[in-house]
Amino acid sequence: MMHGTMQDYPLLLNSFLDHAARWHSDAEVVTARGDGSTDRVGYGALRDRSLAVSALLSSLGIRRGDTVATLAWNSQAHVETWYAVMGIGAVCHTLNPRLTIDQLASMANQSTARVLVVSHHLRKFATELVKHVPSLERLLIIDGEISDRVSESGTPLAYLDDLIGGATDGVSWGGFDETAPAGLCFTSGTTGAPKGVTYTHRSSFLHTLRILQADVMAFTKSDAVLAVVPMFHANAWGLPFAVPAVGGKLVLPSRHTDGASLARLIEKEAVTVGVGVPTVWMGLLEHVEATGAMLPSLRRIIVGGAPMPPALMARLEERLGVVVQTSWGMTELSPSGTVASFSAPDRAAHMAGTPAIGVDLLLTDADGCELPGQRNVEGHLWVRGAAVIERYFGQNFAATNAQGWFPTGDLARIDGQGGLIITGRSKELIKSGGEWINPAEIESLVGAMPEVSQAAVIGRPDTKWGERPILLVELRSDARISDEEIYDRLRDRLASWWVPDEIVRLGAMPLAPTGKIDKLHLRERYGLA
Amino acid sequence: MMHGTMQDYPLLLNSFLDHAARWHSDAEVVTARGDGSTDRVGYGALRDRSLAVSALLSSLGIRRGDTVATLAWNSQAHVETWYAVMGIGAVCHTLNPRLTIDQLASMANQSTARVLVVSHHLRKFATELVKHVPSLERLLIIDGEISDRVSESGTPLAYLDDLIGGATDGVSWGGFDETAPAGLCFTSGTTGAPKGVTYTHRSSFLHTLRILQADVMAFTKSDAVLAVVPMFHANAWGLPFAVPAVGGKLVLPSRHTDGASLARLIEKEAVTVGVGVPTVWMGLLEHVEATGAMLPSLRRIIVGGAPMPPALMARLEERLGVVVQTSWGMTELSPSGTVASFSAPDRAAHMAGTPAIGVDLLLTDADGCELPGQRNVEGHLWVRGAAVIERYFGQNFAATNAQGWFPTGDLARIDGQGGLIITGRSKELIKSGGEWINPAEIESLVGAMPEVSQAAVIGRPDTKWGERPILLVELRSDARISDEEIYDRLRDRLASWWVPDEIVRLGAMPLAPTGKIDKLHLRERYGLA
Repeated sequence: MMHGTMQDYPLLLNSFLDHAARWHSDAEVVTARGDGSTDRVGYGALRDRSLAVSALLSSLGIRRGDTVATLAWNSQAHVETWYAVMGIGAVCHTLNPRLTIDQLASMANQSTARVLVVSHHLRKFATELVKHVPSLERLLIIDGEISDRVSESGTPLAYLDDLIGGATDGVSWGGFDETAPAGLCFTSGTTGAPKGVTYTHRSSFLHTLRILQADVMAFTKSDAVLAVVPMFHANAWGLPFAVPAVGGKLVLPSRHTDGASLARLIEKEAVTVGVGVPTVWMGLLEHVEATGAMLPSLRRIIVGGAPMPPALMARLEERLGVVVQTSWGMTELSPSGTVASFSAPDRAAHMAGTPAIGVDLLLTDADGCELPGQRNVEGHLWVRGAAVIERYFGQNFAATNAQGWFPTGDLARIDGQGGLIITGRSKELIKSGGEWINPAEIESLVGAMPEVSQAAVIGRPDTKWGERPILLVELRSDARISDEEIYDRLRDRLASWWVPDEIVRLGAMPLAPTGKIDKLHLRERYGLA
Repeated sequence: MMHGTMQDYPLLLNSFLDHAARWHSDAEVVTARGDGSTDRVGYGALRDRSLAVSALLSSLGIRRGDTVATLAWNSQAHVETWYAVMGIGAVCHTLNPRLTIDQLASMANQSTARVLVVSHHLRKFATELVKHVPSLERLLIIDGEISDRVSESGTPLAYLDDLIGGATDGVSWGGFDETAPAGLCFTSGTTGAPKGVTYTHRSSFLHTLRILQADVMAFTKSDAVLAVVPMFHANAWGLPFAVPAVGGKLVLPSRHTDGASLARLIEKEAVTVGVGVPTVWMGLLEHVEATGAMLPSLRRIIVGGAPMPPALMARLEERLGVVVQTSWGMTELSPSGTVASFSAPDRAAHMAGTPAIGVDLLLTDADGCELPGQRNVEGHLWVRGAAVIERYFGQNFAATNAQGWFPTGDLARIDGQGGLIITGRSKELIKSGGEWINPAEIESLVGAMPEVSQAAVIGRPDTKWGERPILLVELRSDARISDEEIYDRLRDRLASWWVPDEIVRLGAMPLAPTGKIDKLHLRERYGLA
């Protein structure tokens, strides 16, 4: 029997910053302050600072397997904290500041976080939160200006910068197994109770190598990548790992994600790729359309997290001269599932791309039986891979079936070229007169109308049919369209019984903390009989 | 203590073909026949055939950990054999047909190969070889035409196609650990006895993910990749893994690697990327320069395995309108170390690129002590990574130092931007009057002369100085240059004592079986006192 004799080289996440510091020491992480100025640091210096944070955490008693929570926007200090926590084998639990104290307390109590690292701007919120989380011993503030500092005696609050010293001799990164946990993120819970996903060093490392492929996110050292997607939302889709890994510039907007702020940052930092949910690009587009701003450096926009309205995609590509890469993913997938290739000839808003090596997809019927052929047929989507969840945090049973497939809850079709098209959420299907209506298909038609900014379809209980669809629309600020016009356009394209019973106009579509349309809220408000 | 809860998804090499068959079933592997015609197969059908070969090997008693040797050119059947062997956990030992029977017998006896898969064209050679390798039970011929078949009774020879049946129900791929051995390749032995490198599924999988990055080889599903580098030479630099992994077209020249054959294949298959050693591109260039052929589909040429002459690089880029990506690697590195980025602003023949994530480089002095700063200083090059050798085949001691670094035997410099420049081989340094002369620097100057096709500098024992350099040159077919002219150009650029004592004209530079200049042979013929 022959034995393999290649080096034992564990896949640890700190390697990304180690590599960047060594090979791209001067490439920068840039953070917007909101006033047009920026903070910037090279990867070499960032690694030094991050090691100092590791030393601080060690001095506070944080050990391998302990949890450190963060409640922070995308910033240099947040990136430093991530690597500081993960590098010593602790677990970084990212909390979403857009959730309520109750929701966050429930999550932090589950993870038994001992330290909370919080953006200056969120310190009051955090001070409230800490009262509900007995395990939290320390609250460390980042992102604050010296001039901002307040003395708040009697709280466990301290500015992280004040505590870190120069000595990092006793601290080193790595030395543990690649299957060790590195991060914890709870799902958005738009359709149920949030559940935790525990990423490992190996899973996020392999996720990074997957998205770096030329047919996926394809970042290079020449790129300046604007990470609008928050670090508390499924690892900012892996950008704080992937961009240092190739030595690209990582551009962080902090909490300043309005169109004007993003446009200024893109121009100033010569951003080449923007990454975020569709709504932020709508804000950017409205800004540039209103001001006539030009963003010549921007070549690509990678969108995900919610369906991409075709009209928005067309306007972005036309007005900004960019290529929009649509994608599909979820927290349970680390989070990238598929990304439409930059060079794909069949790019379209509804097309989510073909899986790259390391992700397997399967379509089944409602009973979980594999659909024959797998192509040009709609089914329930299952997924398998090194960056896919096996079981949720705190659960002792698998989230997968016996063959290791994870049920995404999405409905999908795969076309003849292997392109994935998400057609809806299985839980959102509306059953009318014993037949299924898919809200996503109606939303896609309405969303394509140039007057419409956002559209949502929900089911409402109906005594005769069981359920009937209701359409909720938010128009673009300068647009008008009558209900009759909407109905006219829908009647050509939909079976008559799919046409919604009612159209509700909303001034602003309610969004969940992750930026997706909050259907839970819509159902409570408009979906009752 | 928190536990990671992501899926257990082993990194096995059969996944590449599984993925290609599932998602890029119609993308093709194309093999040149030499008469202008080609064989072609989609990944879906190729996987079916490969499973049938697995079934055949199983029926011949091949089990996990057993060795199957191949002695074959780059062809579809060779690719099928690779996946068939590796998929069932056996080890694929690639033999180089350009070596002697004695050399091959020594290697095959070390690996105790039980089956030899051989190209039709090499069957007589293989029949000789098998007499010297007692462990070889079967000889299976691939790449043969029906019309070619000969009956040779009394030998263990059979045509593989005649033996494979339809039933593959009992065969499946995978189910073993990712650290299992997958391939065995011996070093070229241009400067010493060949040593075996045992690749594992994990090491070659991670190597593949590395070269697929946008800043490395950057293959996409839109690419047609011409693999001129042989499969018996360090896994054809990983192309039979990387190209199916993204669903690109894999174009194989078989043994027809002359300029005319390559040009015809590139044109016919709309090849976008060519991969091979510098000499094959010289052949292609001379053909297109002589015939006026145009190859508009070709966008990139990736070269490695030997220093790239600057004049050849300039001519290729100018005449073919391609970007030449230089690289550095070795069998012990699976084999890619660094590749110059497609978009690198500092592309140059001597520049080998910056390491991608997963490869660490270190420069030391002759005693193995780390050089301070690591930049703009010449040193001995060490390497570390998941695809780097830990120990040679059959050896029970590490090939690395105590910190896990593998000594490459190369001399190198790293510039301020992290670009690697190989400056020579430590074993080839010439000691003259107590000082070192680096042959590679002289070769680089001579190689840049437009009249020169290839240049080599070796040391010759000298009673007064210890050693003195001798220059051997092969001119381009239509070129003339006197010794005096060569000396004139060198004197401007070299210290006087570096100028070679003698210039020897060669009609053809002797090449080792891997296509590199055979310095062992040159030293025996011209390097004696």
